[in-house]
Amino acid sequence: MTENGMMSRAKVLTIDTINPTVKKVEYAVRGPIVQRAVELERELSQGMKKPFAEVIKANIGDAHAMGQQPITFFRQDAKSRACRILQSCGGHSMGLYECDVFLDVARYIERRDGGVPCDPDDIYLTTGASDGIVTMLKLLVCGEGASRTGVMISIPQYPLYSAALAELGAVQINYYLNEEKCWSLDIPELQRALDEARQYCNPRALCIINPGNPTGQVQSRKCIEDVIQFAAKERLFLMADEVYQDNVYADGCQFHSFKKVLFEMGPEYSDTVELASFHSTSKCYMGECGFRGGYMELINMDDEVKAQLTKLVSVRLCPPVPGQALMDLVVNPPQPGEPSYDNFIKERTATLSALAEKAKLTEQVLNTVQGISCNPVQGAMYSFPRITIPEKAVKEATEKGQQPDMFYCMKMLEETGICLVPGSGFGQKDGTYHFRMTILPPSDKLKILLDKVKEFHQKFTQQYS
Amino acid sequence: MTENGMMSRAKVLTIDTINPTVKKVEYAVRGPIVQRAVELERELSQGMKKPFAEVIKANIGDAHAMGQQPITFFRQDAKSRACRILQSCGGHSMGLYECDVFLDVARYIERRDGGVPCDPDDIYLTTGASDGIVTMLKLLVCGEGASRTGVMISIPQYPLYSAALAELGAVQINYYLNEEKCWSLDIPELQRALDEARQYCNPRALCIINPGNPTGQVQSRKCIEDVIQFAAKERLFLMADEVYQDNVYADGCQFHSFKKVLFEMGPEYSDTVELASFHSTSKCYMGECGFRGGYMELINMDDEVKAQLTKLVSVRLCPPVPGQALMDLVVNPPQPGEPSYDNFIKERTATLSALAEKAKLTEQVLNTVQGISCNPVQGAMYSFPRITIPEKAVKEATEKGQQPDMFYCMKMLEETGICLVPGSGFGQKDGTYHFRMTILPPSDKLKILLDKVKEFHQKFTQQYS
Ligand SMILES: Cc1ncc(COP(=O)(O)O)c(C=O)c1O
Ligand SMILES: Cc1ncc(COP(=O)(O)O)c(C=O)c1O
Repeated sequence: MTENGMMSRAKVLTIDTINPTVKKVEYAVRGPIVQRAVELERELSQGMKKPFAEVIKANIGDAHAMGQQPITFFRQDAKSRACRILQSCGGHSMGLYECDVFLDVARYIERRDGGVPCDPDDIYLTTGASDGIVTMLKLLVCGEGASRTGVMISIPQYPLYSAALAELGAVQINYYLNEEKCWSLDIPELQRALDEARQYCNPRALCIINPGNPTGQVQSRKCIEDVIQFAAKERLFLMADEVYQDNVYADGCQFHSFKKVLFEMGPEYSDTVELASFHSTSKCYMGECGFRGGYMELINMDDEVKAQLTKLVSVRLCPPVPGQALMDLVVNPPQPGEPSYDNFIKERTATLSALAEKAKLTEQVLNTVQGISCNPVQGAMYSFPRITIPEKAVKEATEKGQQPDMFYCMKMLEETGICLVPGSGFGQKDGTYHFRMTILPPSDKLKILLDKVKEFHQKFTQQYS
Repeated sequence: MTENGMMSRAKVLTIDTINPTVKKVEYAVRGPIVQRAVELERELSQGMKKPFAEVIKANIGDAHAMGQQPITFFRQDAKSRACRILQSCGGHSMGLYECDVFLDVARYIERRDGGVPCDPDDIYLTTGASDGIVTMLKLLVCGEGASRTGVMISIPQYPLYSAALAELGAVQINYYLNEEKCWSLDIPELQRALDEARQYCNPRALCIINPGNPTGQVQSRKCIEDVIQFAAKERLFLMADEVYQDNVYADGCQFHSFKKVLFEMGPEYSDTVELASFHSTSKCYMGECGFRGGYMELINMDDEVKAQLTKLVSVRLCPPVPGQALMDLVVNPPQPGEPSYDNFIKERTATLSALAEKAKLTEQVLNTVQGISCNPVQGAMYSFPRITIPEKAVKEATEKGQQPDMFYCMKMLEETGICLVPGSGFGQKDGTYHFRMTILPPSDKLKILLDKVKEFHQKFTQQYS
């Protein structure tokens, strides 16, 4: 202790005096399981004995970390594309302007949507889709008590949504996807969730993830139309998270953008329903997570709100230019006749058909296991199988203060080296348990992985019966 | 109107129903002046007649957009460095991990601070310094009413601070830099601001920008020591914005990091005072704004708070890897003997000495104008001269509902094509007026620019006397 007592001075910022909304944020995808996986890797590399030779991370959607080959074109042409972008902006360097990218994104959307027009002024470039989603949610939050903004999100969800809503102090309104019908979205369930929520908050927005993470479902055109009708009827701002728009595998499934369906429904809808749609360089066949590129398209957004958004975005300066350059490459891939074209198509096709195969393989193998049932992985990059956890295991987990599926996944990690995310991190119906597993590992590794999961599940079930 | 009235359905999100904290955000650096500048450029390119041939943007600190040559090494070696980083992370691609960069940043800080130890675990990589600053402020905000978190910021300030505080609903506590003493920071003024603020909020943090934006001052070692003592005595979390640490020009001035001074003050301080220090790839001799790279170092941060921070950061996934790679290059430049070394030193020296010359030139020319007085530009990239605006002009501006210096800058833009930012965008003592002008344009252009400013000011003064 010194004269003026400073050695014992309490910290300004402690867990008791931190922003309480920050404390409320939960984020399971990188929780204790991942921490333990990293520890196990270190222990293995130090020569410690384990019942497995390597840790297999099937927890996150980082395609390249899982061994997927980057598309050559993105790496190869990124530099010259960046130059083209910069030229179009009149600068000599990766400065603060974006320019051409907007036009390229708009043209991409028009091609994707069979000619439905896209105004470049409706495009905002973002630091990954995450940034766009959080920013839109931020704009929507207001009111206090029973008039506090509520936002509808699917359960299971991608936990960015719950985290952002917690941080913004908005009310999270859960609607449950129908696991029995291949994780489809049912309008009556939307209505139930909305009606209940109206009693304690002001529901203003409806978030949809299509194709779904973690659930892998791809919505039908009919379903999207119903959702749009519902949003119109109930005056909800629609947020369509379409980062997996190029990741559709199942026969008979097809990606329909909310924008396209909205416009096909005629001016009664296309002139009124407010829609934000998000895309990213992280997913699809690109898998370039690290660049943090993305855009959002804003339909029927009020002009004054747009001006506020522009202001808000300017404060943080621009999204990273390399990410913009990559986004530009993604929306503006090589065209027939261009030197990179053949190789691009070859690589793209190979990547997507490998994913399609692995999606099928995952579903098939998991469904051979008693106590695991897995919906078809129609799109995105994950399976989200339901698992039966014996009563005794549920009890042991509860005594440890753990979620039963966390207990299950942690045990799997310790015994097999496989790293999955427990379903409780995404939300699930009470009393049901799941895990999320990416379909990204190379086929041979995926097969081994699935066999190990099978073996583990059988052993686990036996142990706790 | 359709059957169910949807054509006339009111928008969900309007200026009246937007998040009120978003509405409160002000951001002058990209306000109406910049919008008008862009319009004028378009009009010029369409052949419209103007009293000038080109728009000269001296409003923002984007070095490359102003013609500063990028440092070859950063462009040339970025790719191989990125590869090295990725190898050290075991991935094959720009995936989600950072690894080596932390070690390199820590070693850089140790070199910079003459051996004061730096723990890589105290380093957080960020999407530019902006991201780090906003995140730290977010952690600090809590309480309601008179116990709401207050944050002390300098006036004039870099408007990211006021914008972030508005958005977070924190209380902005202004302390005024002393223009008469070269924009120095006086402890009695800190004390005054703090004592007043304690009556209506809970002051928890003190933000310092050194070297200063927009003011260009470089703080003395003594001043930094006093500030640290003040923060310790008053229990304030220190936030040191040191993005201009390599931009020091004036004879007798030197950059002292808060970290180094803190450690030199002994354990009474170095074991207790909480300090966050921010750095960026955007400034210094690099000027690579577009990459959005940055880091923060957190000293004496509570462990539980660190865990919360890690969680919060994970939700948004990682900062852009190209920015990380660039940050790594910045903190780990070529060493003697390496092939890029000679050229790197040559370019770096040339860039910095050109800036030093332009800093001096700016001060000298502006001080020859009656009605303009300009402090020495000791560091950073801007001059922030005080301008005398005649009563009649103030009156005309007020009648138009404009700040007098906005009125002045807008007139300058229309008449000369020069784009500056009015002092009111950064804050200034009531009744004083300023503008911010970058020192970045190439010398020949800067001379013309300064002459034009001089001429305009004289004309303006005459017109309104
Ligand atoms: C459904 C969904 N939305 C958004 C994101 C975030 O994408 P980004 O990496 O572009 O921020 C992800 C990433 O996994 C996702 O799965
Ligand atoms: C004082 C100060 N802090 C922070 C920033 C933001 O830096 P970055 O571009 O790394 O977000 C700037 C940029 O101009 C600045 O001047």
